[in-house]
Amino acid sequence: MAHTIITIDRQFGSGGRELGRRVADLLGFAYYDKEILKEIVKKTEFSEEYIRDITEKGPISLFPITYSHSFALASDPNIEMAGDVYSAQTSILRDLAEKSNCVIIGRAAGYVLRDLKPIRIYVYSTLDSKIARCKERDKENMTEKQIVKMIKRVDKQRKRYYEFATGMEWGKLENYDLLVNTSNKDMKALARMVAHYFEEE
Amino acid sequence: MAHTIITIDRQFGSGGRELGRRVADLLGFAYYDKEILKEIVKKTEFSEEYIRDITEKGPISLFPITYSHSFALASDPNIEMAGDVYSAQTSILRDLAEKSNCVIIGRAAGYVLRDLKPIRIYVYSTLDSKIARCKERDKENMTEKQIVKMIKRVDKQRKRYYEFATGMEWGKLENYDLLVNTSNKDMKALARMVAHYFEEE
Repeated sequence: MAHTIITIDRQFGSGGRELGRRVADLLGFAYYDKEILKEIVKKTEFSEEYIRDITEKGPISLFPITYSHSFALASDPNIEMAGDVYSAQTSILRDLAEKSNCVIIGRAAGYVLRDLKPIRIYVYSTLDSKIARCKERDKENMTEKQIVKMIKRVDKQRKRYYEFATGMEWGKLENYDLLVNTSNKDMKALARMVAHYFEEE
Repeated sequence: MAHTIITIDRQFGSGGRELGRRVADLLGFAYYDKEILKEIVKKTEFSEEYIRDITEKGPISLFPITYSHSFALASDPNIEMAGDVYSAQTSILRDLAEKSNCVIIGRAAGYVLRDLKPIRIYVYSTLDSKIARCKERDKENMTEKQIVKMIKRVDKQRKRYYEFATGMEWGKLENYDLLVNTSNKDMKALARMVAHYFEEE
C-alpha cells in the first residue's frame, strides 16, 4: 500500500515546523526535518555545514557570473559537489517516503516525491505574526530590526532554493494542496484541522 | 458575542459553493449566496439581471476610455447606479453577518466585512479538475472547448470584481486564512476538515 506523505513548505517564523510536528504526532506519522541533513552527511561525507548551506540556499558557483550557463556549471567543481548532495538528498527522501507514513519539512520534497502524490502544504503568516513568534522563541536577544532582516533573508533563500530545485514558484497555489495562514491562530487547533484532512471515510 | 463569519472566494468549477454549503450544514451556520442578490433587488429596485451583472463583473462605464479617472466616474450615471447597488450589498452583508454565524459566497465579503474578522477561504483547483466538475454538472451539452472558455471568462470577471472592490489581488495568500485545492479530492472530506477549523478548544 502507498504511504501517506505530507510535505510542508513554510515561511520563516510562520510555525510550519511546529505545525508539521503536531500533525505527525496526532496522526502517528514519522517526522523528518533535521534528520535528513544527518543522513546526507553519512551518505556523502561532506561537512554538515556545507550541506546545510547548499540545501538551504541552492548551489554556490565558483563563477557566479556564468551561473546560468550550463557549460560553465558542468566544469565548476562546486556545482559538481552540490549535485552529489542533491542526489543523495533525493534518494534519502525516497527511502523515507517508502518506509512509512510521514511528514517532511522543506527540501522541495513535495516536488521531489511528486510521483508518490504527497499532500503538499504551505504554511505562512503575516510579518507581524512572524516577528511575534520569533520573539517568543530563542531570539530574545535580537532587536526587532534584526529579526525582520533575518526573516526576509531566510525566506529569500527558501524561495531561491525551491525555485532552483523545482523550476516552479514557491508558495504558488497550483504547487500545493492546502495553504494555511497561521497568523493569530492557535497552532494546536490548526494541527487538528490539518490532521482531519487525512481522516478515513 | 461576535459571530463566526466564513467567507468563500472560489475559482469557477472548483466546487467552492458546494464546499461552503457543506461546511454550513456541518456547523449549523446560515448559508448566503444567491439570497443576497434577491435582497439587493428588494432594496434597490434595479433588475436582477443588472445587479447580477455588475456584482459579478464590476461597474460598466458608459465611457470606458476614461474609466480610471474619478472625475469622469462621478459624472457617469452608470457608475452612480452601480454605486447604489454596491452600498446596498454592503449593508445587506453587514446585516446578515450580524444576525448569526454564517457562510457567505463571493462578493468580496471577506474584505467588506474585514472589521468582523471573518475567516477568509479561497477554493481553487486545476483546470482539468474544473472541466471534469463542469461536465458532471449541468454543462453536458457544452463542448470541452466551450467549457474551458466559460471557466476562463468567469474567473476573469471574478478577479476583476474582487480587485475593483478591494484594491487587492484575488487569490493572493495574504488576503486569506486558508486556501484549499479541491482537485481530485472528496468534497465531503474537505468540508469536514474545514469545519474542524472552527472546532471549540
